[in-house]
Amino acid sequence: MEYSGYLPIWDKLTAEQQNRITQTIEFRKVKKGTHIHDSSAECLGLVIVRTGQLRAYILSEDGREITISRLFEYDVSLLSASCVMPDLQFNMMIEAEKDTEFWSIPACLFKNLIDESLAVSNYSRNLLSSNFSELMWLMEQIMWKSFDKRLAAFLLEESVLEDSPVLKITHEKIANHLGTAREVVTRMLRYFQNEGMIALTRGTIEIISKQKLEALGNA
Amino acid sequence: MEYSGYLPIWDKLTAEQQNRITQTIEFRKVKKGTHIHDSSAECLGLVIVRTGQLRAYILSEDGREITISRLFEYDVSLLSASCVMPDLQFNMMIEAEKDTEFWSIPACLFKNLIDESLAVSNYSRNLLSSNFSELMWLMEQIMWKSFDKRLAAFLLEESVLEDSPVLKITHEKIANHLGTAREVVTRMLRYFQNEGMIALTRGTIEIISKQKLEALGNA
Repeated sequence: MEYSGYLPIWDKLTAEQQNRITQTIEFRKVKKGTHIHDSSAECLGLVIVRTGQLRAYILSEDGREITISRLFEYDVSLLSASCVMPDLQFNMMIEAEKDTEFWSIPACLFKNLIDESLAVSNYSRNLLSSNFSELMWLMEQIMWKSFDKRLAAFLLEESVLEDSPVLKITHEKIANHLGTAREVVTRMLRYFQNEGMIALTRGTIEIISKQKLEALGNA
Repeated sequence: MEYSGYLPIWDKLTAEQQNRITQTIEFRKVKKGTHIHDSSAECLGLVIVRTGQLRAYILSEDGREITISRLFEYDVSLLSASCVMPDLQFNMMIEAEKDTEFWSIPACLFKNLIDESLAVSNYSRNLLSSNFSELMWLMEQIMWKSFDKRLAAFLLEESVLEDSPVLKITHEKIANHLGTAREVVTRMLRYFQNEGMIALTRGTIEIISKQKLEALGNA
């Protein structure tokens, strides 16, 4: 019943509702790189992250990607439960960015809980509000912020997540996060290197001047 | 009580809840161009459109705009009630694109209804799901679709809304809808004209070949 501590509304459920969750909740451990949800697969339901890191992203017809949301320990997400929401129509993909442990509450049970419990309905609405704000923020970034600023902010975020100034990430992966082409990333990283912000080696990006990157990313 | 027919959940409310709405709901008629909601003003609450056309958009620090959503007769929107949602943090502006009549249910009452009624909570979640899908669609358009296709689709949509092949809209306004600069719109419209899709005169854009525009917009 460890998951009860990860689900903020657990105490607002009836014993019978808690029991239904206990009987159907699934626990999975997946390796980095595993795709846990896509549009073709069955709807995964509500995801609760125990450890690790997940990435939700969308994919264009010609294979381009952009990261919509990242999930960490204690995060609960509806993006894997779009089947539960009548008007959510898009193809969200979710993959593990690190070895990850998570629980999932099946979509059909979750749908029932929403329909019968005001607490679950309100909680789901708040999760969705939060996703909407996140998407709005991303939209503003894409529309109004130039690519150098978005890239600087991304490198700083990665450095915090990895707890290291040295990032082991390919230019291709960065392009997939930011919704652009690899060449665009490579060109900008070389510019950052010339400006003394980072040092590039084969397979790594080292942050040399956090200060300069921050000045750019927050501008 | 005409508004009861515009609010799909009216029949799911108690007589007491209906009564509270009746006592506080506001009806307004506004002229085309009126700003009915912005981030600095008090939160407007739930908006229900009786007649006319509203546009919800965001604004960058340097004054650029992009249309997030358009509202027509019978549409109900939460975008003017972001104060009701704990995690909605963005600056949404709403203006009348045509002379418009609408009701608004005050934010504080709406917040109370969400907290006490499963029907209202579920309805709000569905509205939000729908907004989220719409934003996701827009994001995909911006990320993956070239500007000529977006502009072609916009002209066709406008022609349907205005019920005319002749559009009285400035290049500036189109730029504000699509989140780009006026020059970009003007350049592309001239290209469309050269290709025999439209005819430009001072202040109007006439659709000459709907077929060619559709072929481009749907590509």
